[in-house]
This record gives sequence, structure tokens and C-alpha cells, in this order.
Amino acid sequence: MITVEEAEKIILEQVTDYGAEIIPFEQALGRVLAENIKADRDLPPFDRVTMDGIAINYNAIENGISTFRVKLTKAAGDEPVDIDEHAECVEIMTGAMLPPSTDTVIKYEDLEMRAGLATLVTNDIKRGQNIHYKGNDKRQDDIVASIGQLITPGIISMVASVGETELRVKKMPRVVILSSGDELIEVNQTPSQYQIRRSNNYTVKAVLKQHNLDAEMLHLPDDEAIIKKQLKTCIEKYDVLLLSGGVSMGKFDYIPKALDELNVTKLFHKVQQRPGKPFWFGKHEKGNLVFALPGNPVATFMCIYRYFLPWLNASLGLEEKPVMRAVLNNRVSFIHPLKYFMQVKLHYNEYCQLMATPVEGNGSGDFANLADTDAFMELPLERNEFKRGEAFKIWKFNHRF
Amino acid sequence: MITVEEAEKIILEQVTDYGAEIIPFEQALGRVLAENIKADRDLPPFDRVTMDGIAINYNAIENGISTFRVKLTKAAGDEPVDIDEHAECVEIMTGAMLPPSTDTVIKYEDLEMRAGLATLVTNDIKRGQNIHYKGNDKRQDDIVASIGQLITPGIISMVASVGETELRVKKMPRVVILSSGDELIEVNQTPSQYQIRRSNNYTVKAVLKQHNLDAEMLHLPDDEAIIKKQLKTCIEKYDVLLLSGGVSMGKFDYIPKALDELNVTKLFHKVQQRPGKPFWFGKHEKGNLVFALPGNPVATFMCIYRYFLPWLNASLGLEEKPVMRAVLNNRVSFIHPLKYFMQVKLHYNEYCQLMATPVEGNGSGDFANLADTDAFMELPLERNEFKRGEAFKIWKFNHRF
Repeated sequence: MITVEEAEKIILEQVTDYGAEIIPFEQALGRVLAENIKADRDLPPFDRVTMDGIAINYNAIENGISTFRVKLTKAAGDEPVDIDEHAECVEIMTGAMLPPSTDTVIKYEDLEMRAGLATLVTNDIKRGQNIHYKGNDKRQDDIVASIGQLITPGIISMVASVGETELRVKKMPRVVILSSGDELIEVNQTPSQYQIRRSNNYTVKAVLKQHNLDAEMLHLPDDEAIIKKQLKTCIEKYDVLLLSGGVSMGKFDYIPKALDELNVTKLFHKVQQRPGKPFWFGKHEKGNLVFALPGNPVATFMCIYRYFLPWLNASLGLEEKPVMRAVLNNRVSFIHPLKYFMQVKLHYNEYCQLMATPVEGNGSGDFANLADTDAFMELPLERNEFKRGEAFKIWKFNHRF
Repeated sequence: MITVEEAEKIILEQVTDYGAEIIPFEQALGRVLAENIKADRDLPPFDRVTMDGIAINYNAIENGISTFRVKLTKAAGDEPVDIDEHAECVEIMTGAMLPPSTDTVIKYEDLEMRAGLATLVTNDIKRGQNIHYKGNDKRQDDIVASIGQLITPGIISMVASVGETELRVKKMPRVVILSSGDELIEVNQTPSQYQIRRSNNYTVKAVLKQHNLDAEMLHLPDDEAIIKKQLKTCIEKYDVLLLSGGVSMGKFDYIPKALDELNVTKLFHKVQQRPGKPFWFGKHEKGNLVFALPGNPVATFMCIYRYFLPWLNASLGLEEKPVMRAVLNNRVSFIHPLKYFMQVKLHYNEYCQLMATPVEGNGSGDFANLADTDAFMELPLERNEFKRGEAFKIWKFNHRF
């Protein structure tokens, strides 16, 4: 049995680059950039008017001029027109390019507009006001989004404005979620008294979907020959096999033997943690990875957040996420020589501290709490008592916090 | 001009229930439940073995028996078999139903198994150990997920295990995102010196997609007749029109007039805020809502998070999200008589406090920072100076925090 940190290290040693692909930028939300995106020109690309009103040359003000003839009216997108003398102005709209012969914009609220004339009704005019200058945000060829960045709505905005219709993004690994065991029936079937419905595979699929990974699903019956045949096909077809159940080494757990015969090398089996002790991890000679997660729903869920997602993010080259911590809101005892991943509810207190309140479970088979909790708190292995007010690592699965 | 709070109140008075629809549970991730989901039977549905080993009757231990004949071996999903006398046991696997004649499970690690006999190698056996009792998580007909809950992976897990293949979920409003202005060209076009590319509409579409809303897009040219015709069609086809730009009352902003002629009543125009002062909100006589957001990208983005999403969540009947706050990490001055929505970067300090560091922008036209910041901090209108260490409301747009 190894520690959580050893398991984490072994898994992160198997970080794999699955290459890149080019996709339309509108479909890239949530993916990871595999290229640097540069500004194709300055941003803004011209001295941009930021108020509706008139554009003048400030020298006019210095020369005592307070009424201007409106030469023309220009909207955003129009070709600019210059004034011919200081007593002229261009009536101009937000977003338009400032005429080169002008340097100052006066908004309607500071003007009286009548009969083709604009007259100042304020003395408070500053040279250069109401202009967003060319290149002020970004210079041409500046990097506006970088390799390894998660593509957020903000990044979509940037790439659209620099004209990148297609983006090079990291390829996602091909993942299959395997459930196993004849006691598990389909959701639409009626279970006998001693059967239960499959749910783990759907939960894992949902978590991966939230991380932009569309995984496939397959169920393995308790039949040694079929298990081996299906696992062989999966190894040919997928980069990663996520198994849930079938690895606790019970009498009918044929999976470890089948994996061994298919040249999947065990890298570890059993981790000093609760839930999830029987966690098995291995690698095929061709590089395929097998995360064989314990069958109980809470253990599966925890291992996905604690091990698989950090591996996935590292494989995608995503900037590392800072480890999150929260303050324990109750005293907790845990006497077993295992690292305890405790389900907690989160809230912020009046000092904006992230607080974690333990939710008592009924052991690792109890998944009824998952819908009502927000995170797992990872309590140090070497201790049995955890005081109120101490801060510990958390693995958050509720996006509201 | 009205305050942010007044604008919020007027918008939330227009919360609308768009009804419900029934969809397959696998497609329901991120939607909002419109029915209570009940347990179809107890969870667990039977006394469930939680360790591989043997099932015995504890009275045997009290009678000094320490070696048991293995009657049969039973896996998860098997019909259980009873023992006939105390010196017998059933070899049994995790997930199996406990035979009614037994009450205690002993794990392999505490046994020596040989020639059909199981012999104890420990004295530390407790009656009832290693059993997850019937109904311990939920009782039959208990509500396992409620109306108004966001469907998370945890909820998917629950509904799968109680056999709900289809779910009644809240319908999403039909939303169209309208851009406007001849200065805006398509992303794949090459702009002239005084044009820019459309990006706001893609940003808004991406934000809504993160909230499970697939919006359509349409561009309005600067042509009064076409604008009116297209807006009329949109009012027939969509519940909500999200406009970006065209409402600052510039000379070529035909949209307010067209909306008025189409019987969209203005509920407010101009909010005491930066960015986003020209925000216009109205309602058609048939109930369609028009959020006419200012054209600058940061203002559009802020108004979506501050006004549209809270309205959407309330319309879906989603449980109200607690207001988030963070601690200001720098002294800030803001002298204008407007409520300032300041872009901030977030981090947690060593005390797990959520800290907000202002990122200086170049005014509201500057969206280059959106990709590098995490939230808007909403600073009180009635003050101009904001001290380090004070906590203020935030509107978070980065899921990492």
C-alpha cells in the first residue's frame, strides 16, 4: 500500500501529450490553446472616439473659440474626414476613428447643437479627452493569448477581435468508462431485490463532460473471457480506460488478471486513503493508461477529482491550478491509518474566509451526500485529530464556490 | 439615470417561468430540475456487504466458534443463500446482499481460508461489522433531488440509481444575441483602418453556453428599415433579445426608436455605473425582454454577469446563489458619481481569505484584461475611497476560484 502522495507522483509521471488539432474558434470554449495568438494590428487599431459628440483641435479652445461649424457627421466604421480650420468640428459617434486633424472629443452633454453649430456649455475641456488611443491595449504582434491557456469567454473575445477563425488546441485523450459486475443493471431496468442500477459510469461521464471531455461507456459482465476480449478492444481504441469496480480482488474480480495478460503493467494497487483504498493504476506497453477505480460511488468520484483530473490538466499542458485550501469549521477525529477525504459543505464567513463544514457520511458506499456537499477535504495522514480553525487542502466539485 | 440596485430590481421583477420539458437524464447535466425525484426503494436496497470475506452469525463467536465451513460463495448480484447452523458461513463479496441468517461480515485479512474452512486469525470482531444497512442513506419515497436544483454529476448519480431515465427540467428561454453597427465586420474579414471585428456576440454566446443556454446570433446593419424588420422577427421568435451596442443614443443608433415602434416599452435607460452607463432595458407587450447592453466589450460582459445571469437563474427557479465577497488588496480611488465595477484578479491568502487585486484598465473599451482577470468588484456608489482590507461584493467569471 502506498501513500496518496506516492500515487499522485506515479500518475503524474504518466502525463502524456496527445498532440493538437485545429478547430473553429466558436467551438473552442473550454479547450486548451496549443498556439500563441498575436494581435494582427494595434488594439485599438486607431484613435477611437469613446463618446458621442464633436471632434475638435484643442488649439481652437486655446485661441478662445467656443462655437464650431459642423463640417460633417461621422459614425463608427466611416472613413474619417479632416477639418480645414480650427473653427470647424466633425460631429462624431462612439467607436469612430478620430480625424487626424483633431485631438479632442467633446460630448453632447457639454454642447448646445443648433443650426449646424456646436457651442460649448462648459469650460472644463482637456486636450485629448474621450479618446482610446491606438495600441493602448495591445501592440501589433503582442501575444494576446498563450499556449496552455484555458479558452474562456474572455479568450474567445480576444481571438475574434484579432481575426483568428480557427484555433490550434490540445487534443483530448480518447477515454472509455468501464463499469463491471453482474449485480449492476441498466438505469431503465427493474432491479431484483439484490441488484442495483449502474450510476457510477454516468457520474464520471458527467464530470468529464464538465471538463470538455466526451467519454464513451461500456459495461463488462462477470465473464472472464468476455472481459479479456473487451479490454483488448478498449486498449486498441482508447488512450485511457477508466474502470469503476472490479478491482477489490474479490473472488469474481477478473479484471486485474485480464489486464495482466493483456500486458498492462500494474504501477500500483491500493492507496492509503479512505475512500478509495483498492485504487489500481497501470500502463500498457503502448502507453495506454488504466485507472481502475474502486466501485463505490464516493471513492470513484473522489479519485476522479484527486487523481484523474490533475493528470488530464497536466497532459493538456494547462497552467497549474493553485491548490485550494479551506478552514475546518468543526473538530474532527479520524482514527484509521488512512488519509481521510472528508465530504464538506463550503461557505465564506464575514471575513471572506472559505470555511468547510464536514458532512457525516455512512461510509464510502454512501453517495447520497454527494449532491449536497461541495468538496472533499484532504486530512493529513499522520494525524488523527483535526481542530476547528485549521486549514487543509480541498478538492472542490461544486462550481458555485 | 437610475442606480444599480434600482436596475436590478426592475430586471428581477421581469423574472419569467418558461415552463418545463422532459429530456433523457444523460442530457440533463447543467439543467435545473422541475420535479422532485424520489427513491423508488430504500438506498441501499438491502443490507449490503462492504468487504470481501465471509458472512456469519455473531452468536457463533459468542459460543466460541472460530472455524466456519464455507457453504457457498456469493458475489454481488447473486441471490443470497442462508446458513443452516452457526458453524457455517457464506463466502461473500463486496456489494452482495447479506444472507438474512447472518449479521456480521469478516474480511479475508482476518481469516485463514483452507480446504473449505475459514478460520479466524483475530479476536477483534464486532457484531454487525462491514455492513451498509438497508435504507441507511435514503428511505423509499424520500426525496433525493428537488425542484430548483442544478443538475450536477452528483444529481446524475442519484437519479440513475433510482431509475429515472427521463427528467422534467426547466425550459431555457429562447435567446438571440444581436450585434449592430456597420463598423463591425465578421471575424474572417479583413478590416479597413477604421473598422473592427465583431467579438462581443461571440463572448456573450460563450458565457451563455457555460450556463447551458444555446443562443443564436444575428447582426443588424445601420439601416433603419432593416433594423425594424429584423427586430420584429426576433420578437416573434425569441423570448429574450440581448443587444450589444446601438443604444448610446448616437446619431445613428436607430435601435431605441425601432423598439419603441414595435411596442417594446423602455423600463429604464442609463444606469449609474461604470462601465455600462447606457444600459437600456425594455419589455414587449407580449412579455419578450430586451437587454440592450452598451457596445463596449467590458460593459457587455459585466452586464451579462451582473444583470442577465441573475435574471436567468431566477427565471429557472434555481436556488439563490449567496452573494460572493472578497477582500480588497489595494487602496483604490474612484471619483466619478458612478458605481464602479472594477476588474480584479483573485487569490486565497494563507488564512483562506479570498483576496481581490485590482487590474488597471484603459477604460471600458479595454477588454484585453478580461482574459487575465477573474471577477468584477462592485464598489459602493456613495464612496470615492476604498481601503485595503475592506470586503466588497464580487461577480466572478473565472471558475477556478
